Amino acid sequence: MQSFPDRLDQLCAARGSICAGIDPRPERLPTDMTRDDWAAQACARLAPQVAAVKPQLAFFGDRWAGVQGVAHAAREGGALVIADCKRGDIGSTATAYAEALLGAESPYDAVTLNPYLGGDSLEPWIEVAARHGRGLYVLVKTSNPGSRDLQDLELAGGGTLCERVARLVSELGEAHRGGESGRSLIGAVVGLTAPLDVIARLRELMPHTPFLMPGYGAQGGDPRALAAAKDAAGGGVLVSASRSLTHPWQGAAPADWRERLDAACEAMRIDLAE
Amino acid sequence: MQSFPDRLDQLCAARGSICAGIDPRPERLPTDMTRDDWAAQACARLAPQVAAVKPQLAFFGDRWAGVQGVAHAAREGGALVIADCKRGDIGSTATAYAEALLGAESPYDAVTLNPYLGGDSLEPWIEVAARHGRGLYVLVKTSNPGSRDLQDLELAGGGTLCERVARLVSELGEAHRGGESGRSLIGAVVGLTAPLDVIARLRELMPHTPFLMPGYGAQGGDPRALAAAKDAAGGGVLVSASRSLTHPWQGAAPADWRERLDAACEAMRIDLAE
Repeated sequence: MQSFPDRLDQLCAARGSICAGIDPRPERLPTDMTRDDWAAQACARLAPQVAAVKPQLAFFGDRWAGVQGVAHAAREGGALVIADCKRGDIGSTATAYAEALLGAESPYDAVTLNPYLGGDSLEPWIEVAARHGRGLYVLVKTSNPGSRDLQDLELAGGGTLCERVARLVSELGEAHRGGESGRSLIGAVVGLTAPLDVIARLRELMPHTPFLMPGYGAQGGDPRALAAAKDAAGGGVLVSASRSLTHPWQGAAPADWRERLDAACEAMRIDLAE
Repeated sequence: MQSFPDRLDQLCAARGSICAGIDPRPERLPTDMTRDDWAAQACARLAPQVAAVKPQLAFFGDRWAGVQGVAHAAREGGALVIADCKRGDIGSTATAYAEALLGAESPYDAVTLNPYLGGDSLEPWIEVAARHGRGLYVLVKTSNPGSRDLQDLELAGGGTLCERVARLVSELGEAHRGGESGRSLIGAVVGLTAPLDVIARLRELMPHTPFLMPGYGAQGGDPRALAAAKDAAGGGVLVSASRSLTHPWQGAAPADWRERLDAACEAMRIDLAE
């Protein structure tokens, strides 16, 4: 079984380092479609063109049924599926979540995790992910303005909290590197909206860590941040866009919404390649 | 509509400050019952005896169906329902989660939240909770050993990360105090396993914040921590127990498991009252 970072690398090389965030907004759906139907159809349209899709589980009310169509469409289109669930829990609870979301029956290839509870809250996930060839992305520096409140706090020993989390992610990942890429199965979420020097510093602290970078498009992220985020091999970065890629319109979806998804995806690919 | 802290106060005064964590362990179920059936029946047994029940959503695979029986049994028994989901997400996602988990249709009275993403990730929850008379518990100092990794880090400006989170919780809660108790709808999760001086310091920083304290029983929390955690009015603390209260046996559940729940609940009540 190929490792998650290797599968992702091959897809990024072939299709561009694009991840389509599937966050269905009720007010931007076609007027004659349900949320779940739209999400599955939008995913079916985008999946053959992107490396990964990232359904935000919150928008499906955490219901498996809602997200099954998305996961199925992603597989049909050959894209990886990252469940954006930002879980973080202790011991046996983390194990229960990990088995449910990354176990043998799961349609997901990776999940996002919150590190606030510490290393022992991540370990059950690492064990399950390693066993099933899946991946993890730990929140390090998020793309929202409030990420400053805690993540940017200066520590008494030097550096910031998000830098400390970056060290933890890198250390935990050392034992889980491999494959052709040499990258770890434990990735990091680093917002494209972060200052360039912060992104460069985080890459320095996490040389073998795959980055998942939200904040492209609607949130105003700087595509130049990509250069700062790439690893020594010139890769290891997946850029995620949600609204700008899956809802590139105002109000209810226009009749030609499928073609608009194609156009938005192509524009993003060109933008990232520059 | 009475506020969440006031409703909780009345129940704690009448029944003791006990919260039953509903984390169904497959290996400790009666051999002839499904997880969901057992969880609903255990909850039906305990709900009339405790102030609140806290289903851990992970153990239900995040499925609404599984947890509905628990929520229904809790209401029948007059206990409040705290959904232990530890959510933390940005803007519109937080709003989607908050509406799903605390909106008009929700069976939950409160949820647990993770603060790593910062204040703007908590605000949509506060807005929804205030509108519907519900409550929140933000993770401040968790009960697992790994809580040291980040939560105990010393900050350059003095104090620890969890103390900084405590300040944030207290500040955000100031505008949401009221009712007879004068307590805020924004509570804090503070593990009973924390050192007594840490608990006392967190109470000092959060004088009007309801505490939810896991770690009683199986995790080895010190009941003396209760004294340190109580607020100026001698209350504001809810103690949560899971394994020691809902699975007080080894292996598969014995035939008299219902009576064992009653006995464990009574023992905990006496223990906390001492």
